[in-house]
Amino acid sequence: MMQGEIIATGTELITGQVADCNTHYAARRLFEAGLEVARFTTVGDKGPLIREVLEQAMSRSQFIIITGGLGPTEDDVTLPAAALALDRRLVVHDGLLDRIKRCLGARQIPWEERYAGLALIPEGAQLLDPGGMACGFAVKHEEVRLYFLPGVPQEMRSLFDGFVLPNLVAWAQPEEYWVRRTLRLFGISEGQLQGVICRRPEFQQGVTVGYYPHFPETHLSLTLRGKDRAVLNASLDRLTAALGAEVGEALLGPEEATLEELVGRLLRTGGLTVAVAESCTGGLIGDRLTNVPGSSDYFLGGVVSYSNEAKHDLLKVPPEVLAQKGAVSPETAGDMARGVREVFHADIGLAVTGIAGPSGGSPAKPVGTVYIGLADTEGEDVWHYQFYGNRTEIKTLTAQTALDRLRRKLKT
Amino acid sequence: MMQGEIIATGTELITGQVADCNTHYAARRLFEAGLEVARFTTVGDKGPLIREVLEQAMSRSQFIIITGGLGPTEDDVTLPAAALALDRRLVVHDGLLDRIKRCLGARQIPWEERYAGLALIPEGAQLLDPGGMACGFAVKHEEVRLYFLPGVPQEMRSLFDGFVLPNLVAWAQPEEYWVRRTLRLFGISEGQLQGVICRRPEFQQGVTVGYYPHFPETHLSLTLRGKDRAVLNASLDRLTAALGAEVGEALLGPEEATLEELVGRLLRTGGLTVAVAESCTGGLIGDRLTNVPGSSDYFLGGVVSYSNEAKHDLLKVPPEVLAQKGAVSPETAGDMARGVREVFHADIGLAVTGIAGPSGGSPAKPVGTVYIGLADTEGEDVWHYQFYGNRTEIKTLTAQTALDRLRRKLKT
Repeated sequence: MMQGEIIATGTELITGQVADCNTHYAARRLFEAGLEVARFTTVGDKGPLIREVLEQAMSRSQFIIITGGLGPTEDDVTLPAAALALDRRLVVHDGLLDRIKRCLGARQIPWEERYAGLALIPEGAQLLDPGGMACGFAVKHEEVRLYFLPGVPQEMRSLFDGFVLPNLVAWAQPEEYWVRRTLRLFGISEGQLQGVICRRPEFQQGVTVGYYPHFPETHLSLTLRGKDRAVLNASLDRLTAALGAEVGEALLGPEEATLEELVGRLLRTGGLTVAVAESCTGGLIGDRLTNVPGSSDYFLGGVVSYSNEAKHDLLKVPPEVLAQKGAVSPETAGDMARGVREVFHADIGLAVTGIAGPSGGSPAKPVGTVYIGLADTEGEDVWHYQFYGNRTEIKTLTAQTALDRLRRKLKT
Repeated sequence: MMQGEIIATGTELITGQVADCNTHYAARRLFEAGLEVARFTTVGDKGPLIREVLEQAMSRSQFIIITGGLGPTEDDVTLPAAALALDRRLVVHDGLLDRIKRCLGARQIPWEERYAGLALIPEGAQLLDPGGMACGFAVKHEEVRLYFLPGVPQEMRSLFDGFVLPNLVAWAQPEEYWVRRTLRLFGISEGQLQGVICRRPEFQQGVTVGYYPHFPETHLSLTLRGKDRAVLNASLDRLTAALGAEVGEALLGPEEATLEELVGRLLRTGGLTVAVAESCTGGLIGDRLTNVPGSSDYFLGGVVSYSNEAKHDLLKVPPEVLAQKGAVSPETAGDMARGVREVFHADIGLAVTGIAGPSGGSPAKPVGTVYIGLADTEGEDVWHYQFYGNRTEIKTLTAQTALDRLRRKLKT
């Protein structure tokens, strides 16, 4: 079995200043393509250590992805370290040299001999040139393939997807694939989900199940291995359907769509419009709905009614309701939903009112008390929730639950 | 110089399914404490490989942090691999055994002998018990200190901060510290910033400068090394002041405060209230303002006017302005700001209107055209911007720029 590893270099990584996202990206893409990675290594910008790590990797792996340290500053030491590990001279790449000269010319900077250092690559290496951005290079050394890529994520991804992955797949020709599907669930705990998975016979053999909290959702991954992608995908479809039969509406969908995308599709299909009245979420529901391109077709707008005056002036919540029941009450949530529906002439009004904390709670209405209201032609529904968490967590849970209530309503 | 490394284990990491945040967390905390980390390694849940990596690390490092693979399922193989690498037996820890028995009893699960396997730790190791959560363990093996921690980030961080870091610092007693300060800037490009840094003599020696794009802000890190934290912090203060003298208001502040926190402080200090009228941002400005605890003291609310009707009905933008100048125009932005200020009886009205895309642009008003309006007792200011990016990037830039305009206004 062919096996590879990923090496990231950078003092900013090893000192914890910057989180490395290149390694995770490459690992995910390689896994999907059926290529096995055994090890990640990260070291700072130290030539001798990079050389040692490269030599170790070359002694045990068939392919190696190396990111970072290819830039023009004195921190960038990957290139000379690679030359030593590969026991190759650094030579000027004429095409790269020409481009550097053109760039200098365009900026009217006079040529100096030291700029030639920017055009060096190990002898016999292939330049990986994405055009106009930082270059990488590939080397076949004995039976090992090495790919050196820039550390800037955008540049790294461009070269990885455009060259490294196709090149590796063409060479390795993996006979078996892993396919993985991530299902998104909301409104079911990880424990409940595990109970379901243990109960259904489909999940007992040949499938690897992973649970990943992805606040406020739970994501469940199903991984299968085999020779035929179509067969594997059909199996995933059956597993998805089996799960849906158990958990019902808690399964947000078999695809990668976000909750606001799902809500948007349902509104569009139904030819319906929505307006939102937000108190404790401060605008987060509207923000999420409008992250979807084309949302202006069904989202008319909203009122953020942080003050009681706004709840009365803009949403027509009667003063006596606010005085007697309080701003955080089922009555106010229902009135806010009806009010915003009328003010915006929308088919549906969605409203939230609650206490995000950390202050503002009371024994009767502790922090995390939330009411969600939904008004349509048939009247108003109101739901009561008690959430736990810090301020932004309660805001997030409230927005997510309100959008999920709307999704479930639209599906009935 | 004492030196350490960090090892992460988990098949979900090596296959790119989950991004490892434990390593980055530990590296950052160790760096701040003056402890040097030379290498990160990640491997899957494979016993022999974990053993090999542990043995290599023990041969060259003085301290090793290992995360993951300590749970009760068959995937969790770190413990037996550690026993082999350390050449120690696994023994039952009585305190841990008692706790497992109590937990089973509370759930009325009858005892079976196999549960004793959950109470094993290497002979001579110290149990790291955060109380009620997953445990880790620490081992001093010859001159090497090893810390095995659970992979769940919350549990890992609790044990790392509560035990590992104090334990390591007390042992290593680092004589020199690194201090690092991250400055947050907005409204200046990385290129402009580099020009400033190259020009000022303070930044030419003894300080390591790092540039980190942190969309939509640019973060600049200044790192110094020395024996006396107070002296180092005074140097950082001088460097911060020197930068501020060059870039002025583009420096958001010397502390870690977010833009919405800075705006909140200025509003609170001035005894002022604000209301927002949002079009293309959909509620994002209100969401950001209300992420700050206590924001209800100065944030009265807002209107999300995605439709022209809402701009007219709720914000009193005259129909002839909308018809003749358009919803995305300086006139509408000014009228929205004035309207929302009046509707909410606020001291300041802040408004945005623009085209977030991907559709809706025209040659005269391309995608990314944004107008920001600010109304106060003295009248209205309106600014025109042309942003570039995808839909959420344009939303983010618009909200950030509007909050920054408010911040700059409040500082004058």
